[in-house]
Amino acid sequence: MSDPVFITNVSVARMDGADGAYSLLRQAGLRIEGDRIAWVGPMAEADPAWRGQEIDGGGRLLTPALIDCHTHIVHGGNRAREFEMRLQGASYEEIARAGGGIVSTVSATRAADEQTLLDAALIRADALIAEGVGTVEIKSGYGLDIETELKMLRVARAVGAQRPLRVVTSFLGAHAVPKGKTADAYIDEVCIPALEAAHEAGLVDAVDGFCEGIAFDATQIARVFDRAAALGLPVKLHAEQLSNMGGTALAASHGALSADHVEFATEADARALKAAGSVAVLLPGAFYTLHETQKPPVAAFRAAGVPMAVATDWNPGSSPMGSLLLAMNMGCTLFGLTPAEALAGTTCHAARALGLKDCGVIAPGMRADLALWDVEAPAELSYGIGINPLYRRIHGGRA
Amino acid sequence: MSDPVFITNVSVARMDGADGAYSLLRQAGLRIEGDRIAWVGPMAEADPAWRGQEIDGGGRLLTPALIDCHTHIVHGGNRAREFEMRLQGASYEEIARAGGGIVSTVSATRAADEQTLLDAALIRADALIAEGVGTVEIKSGYGLDIETELKMLRVARAVGAQRPLRVVTSFLGAHAVPKGKTADAYIDEVCIPALEAAHEAGLVDAVDGFCEGIAFDATQIARVFDRAAALGLPVKLHAEQLSNMGGTALAASHGALSADHVEFATEADARALKAAGSVAVLLPGAFYTLHETQKPPVAAFRAAGVPMAVATDWNPGSSPMGSLLLAMNMGCTLFGLTPAEALAGTTCHAARALGLKDCGVIAPGMRADLALWDVEAPAELSYGIGINPLYRRIHGGRA
Ligand SMILES: [Zn+2]
Ligand SMILES: [Zn+2]
Repeated sequence: MSDPVFITNVSVARMDGADGAYSLLRQAGLRIEGDRIAWVGPMAEADPAWRGQEIDGGGRLLTPALIDCHTHIVHGGNRAREFEMRLQGASYEEIARAGGGIVSTVSATRAADEQTLLDAALIRADALIAEGVGTVEIKSGYGLDIETELKMLRVARAVGAQRPLRVVTSFLGAHAVPKGKTADAYIDEVCIPALEAAHEAGLVDAVDGFCEGIAFDATQIARVFDRAAALGLPVKLHAEQLSNMGGTALAASHGALSADHVEFATEADARALKAAGSVAVLLPGAFYTLHETQKPPVAAFRAAGVPMAVATDWNPGSSPMGSLLLAMNMGCTLFGLTPAEALAGTTCHAARALGLKDCGVIAPGMRADLALWDVEAPAELSYGIGINPLYRRIHGGRA
Repeated sequence: MSDPVFITNVSVARMDGADGAYSLLRQAGLRIEGDRIAWVGPMAEADPAWRGQEIDGGGRLLTPALIDCHTHIVHGGNRAREFEMRLQGASYEEIARAGGGIVSTVSATRAADEQTLLDAALIRADALIAEGVGTVEIKSGYGLDIETELKMLRVARAVGAQRPLRVVTSFLGAHAVPKGKTADAYIDEVCIPALEAAHEAGLVDAVDGFCEGIAFDATQIARVFDRAAALGLPVKLHAEQLSNMGGTALAASHGALSADHVEFATEADARALKAAGSVAVLLPGAFYTLHETQKPPVAAFRAAGVPMAVATDWNPGSSPMGSLLLAMNMGCTLFGLTPAEALAGTTCHAARALGLKDCGVIAPGMRADLALWDVEAPAELSYGIGINPLYRRIHGGRA
């Protein structure tokens, strides 16, 4: 148990939904006891007995530690060669012949030993930590065989064990169809047995899938979701990224934590997400990289009252993006989010997309996962492009 | 004079134009004597006498230190409030009434004392240094009065004095028309006298302008350029960003170092730049922030053989972008540059855009300004989005 800490002289963006925006408290202080927030309020109301344990905030901005609620940071290799070939004018066929595409990441992830995967994932985790991230979600999905899916999830757990970072795992067996199998056979013979084995090993916090023409249809995903429900696991889904396949409706009907990407979601989808209590997770890095033009229906999500999260989708193919602050900026610049929505999208709403109730908000009783920023106003976090104004991070009450 | 250094076991992207791309040398070494590169070649041909002075490159990639050839990193304040208002739906008129736009940066820059401006600029310079940047260009242009234009340039020189970073200055008095003056009166009464005073004080390496409907027309810029020529100073120009005003043709006719932005440049402009030996400086951060749709004519520049540079344009309004690596990625993703073009754009071609002949290339006799990267292939530098794989930077021969 660490000593209590009293952070003085800060502006606190509580992100508790009280005013639909930052819920900003100026000239404030925050008291930490153990790994929890014990008190937050105006400096004038602070207990004089707390003096002597101060961290002087120097007028800086204090926010919840950021939460990256959608990543694939455990993977082997990179796809820079494919990126370069495409810009040199190569066709998708030529790239596929040269071994590009998700197949190359699957091969590299299968071939890598656990330590190699962990070393690479830790470099990525460290980059997120350096930006004030306190919680990161990590998916499997580059194994597409039982052994490698479990290996990826063990590595994800090891990232959380070796760094002051909370890791939440998602089993994403239904990510792509491996060569030599039909989608249906893969779901029955590999994906569901892998899910059961991973759950048995305590490696799964949620179950994810990729519902798209190039991956699995809604009825195939539904089989995985039914199995998840039988195991008592929450679900989420890559849905409506490149077309409307009914994935968002499916996710809502299964009470999903979130539907992610959702560029092609409709107003009806938005209402279904609202009714289900699901979060829409926006992933502007993939939109940017793939030169997409269909933006997610932000106005419909606002109108329906769907909470929107923002994440990096850090993966080696469609979003090799290592900065959650940059995802926030892209959420604003490419999708028209307000800076307040972008910050809610990486704090309170991101927590909800992961089913976490003890972080993402600054209030008594919440985990003391905090970020102190060298900025005056919260909008500065989204305004900068590739700028990191982190001054200090606190994780579980420890600076 | 520092001891000689021998960097072993690296891939060297020499960027010397020998193969039109990276001019990559694998299993190579590089010898530094003083502040210069003394030798670069295959490890097998290295002098055995150099043993004992090694930095083991560990198979990493060695490139010239990066060069950010277009920035406005000396400025007061930020424009996050305006960014937020715009995303909340405010009109340009409402933003202007709230004191937004370039006027707010001019006010903040005039009001700030020299130390305050320097402190803020050093934070920005440090972010660039941390990305392997060895040379940065810094412009004036937020003073629009004689005193503040000189103050900005003194601060720019101070950045170079206080950090291991080479700073090249551009006088940008012709950046905007201040309230209460006509453009013509401003050029005659403020801009040209400020240029003469700044040159007299040794603060000017080049003369820049902004040729645009909202700023100055080609005949007004020509008056500034004529004065620059009389003073023996090279010129460059913000040209063809939002429309074709004839700025690129003007720049070429004055033998400019570069024409910058150039989204609306034509094939004839490209040929003129080629004939003049000028560089086209691409600034994807402003294109991205302003939601522009007209891309610079990359194919025409290629066809004409115009060297293309890439820079951050780091400024508080149209490009609050603090990462040159991200500008490289955007150059590829938004403008279709190849990763080799993007790297040439921040090394050899960026040096040329600044009139520098002793950096941006790895060859004997060049300055030992180098960056060592934790990547295998040079394309990885452009492929990552908000990822910084710098392992180590060497500036003027010093690690
Ligand atoms: Zn994903
Ligand atoms: Zn500029």
